[in-house]
Amino acid sequence: MDIPSYISGYVDGEGCFTVSFSPRPTLRRGWEVRPSFSVSQNGDRCEVLQLMKEYFECGAIRPDRSDKTLKYEVRSIRDLMNRIVPHFRTHPLLSGKAKDFERFASICHLVAMGRHLTDSGWREIVTLAIGMNASGRRRFAVERLLEESGPEVIVSATSNGGDT
Amino acid sequence: MDIPSYISGYVDGEGCFTVSFSPRPTLRRGWEVRPSFSVSQNGDRCEVLQLMKEYFECGAIRPDRSDKTLKYEVRSIRDLMNRIVPHFRTHPLLSGKAKDFERFASICHLVAMGRHLTDSGWREIVTLAIGMNASGRRRFAVERLLEESGPEVIVSATSNGGDT
Repeated sequence: MDIPSYISGYVDGEGCFTVSFSPRPTLRRGWEVRPSFSVSQNGDRCEVLQLMKEYFECGAIRPDRSDKTLKYEVRSIRDLMNRIVPHFRTHPLLSGKAKDFERFASICHLVAMGRHLTDSGWREIVTLAIGMNASGRRRFAVERLLEESGPEVIVSATSNGGDT
Repeated sequence: MDIPSYISGYVDGEGCFTVSFSPRPTLRRGWEVRPSFSVSQNGDRCEVLQLMKEYFECGAIRPDRSDKTLKYEVRSIRDLMNRIVPHFRTHPLLSGKAKDFERFASICHLVAMGRHLTDSGWREIVTLAIGMNASGRRRFAVERLLEESGPEVIVSATSNGGDT
């Protein structure tokens, strides 16, 4: 049994690569961009979350909003870049989720380089995020991030986005 | 990347080991017992189902009740015994789902030996199934299978069940 491959299989089914944007008026751009990797599980079957925490040597397990589930989550950009992204390069996801992972990894790279502080980097991040397989609600919210920078940017995002 | 380990990880998150009982008046016991192994997936991300079908060299992929999902399913008791059960012996599940798999494997073994045709074998199968992590609805239906064989059997099932 090869634990790294097992973990990639588990994550291909149950894992989430998320890029969330939160309003932060004190930040230069008015928004905080936060990539995170997470896996949720019923609390009575949390062995795999513990295994992942030990394997990746980072992240935390905490109760999710509902009391019934636990979530293993990695938010630190350093841990994402040093531990999470390299794992899925050597042990890649085999489903269509791999495309989302590639966008996620690019966003992590841009954030780690400080590119989210520049106009072109910010547009690139938002455009990559729009192309990820998010719910309708999330996608709408992400598009607002570009609208607020001026209408001409919306066009740029749409024509470069993953859906066109 | 080790594909068998990846598959065990994926199944630990997304797979189902099911034992269903259907009324069949023409059968000796009035019920058919049918173990099956299945994994469901949104149709737009069905690569892993195809991978499993090729790896296990058995089973079928078909649309689930909803049009949006596909299901990879193995129902043949011979394929379950020869392909599915041995895989999860050499590449075991690491979550609490492993306990359900052990009960499932025991039921497959009993059915393959024809023990479901005997009173003691039938009670053993139903008792094992009751102990599996089923929904309330399913669990109630399984208990009916023993009730209909006479009330003394219910007691036996309860005291040997996984919850006591």
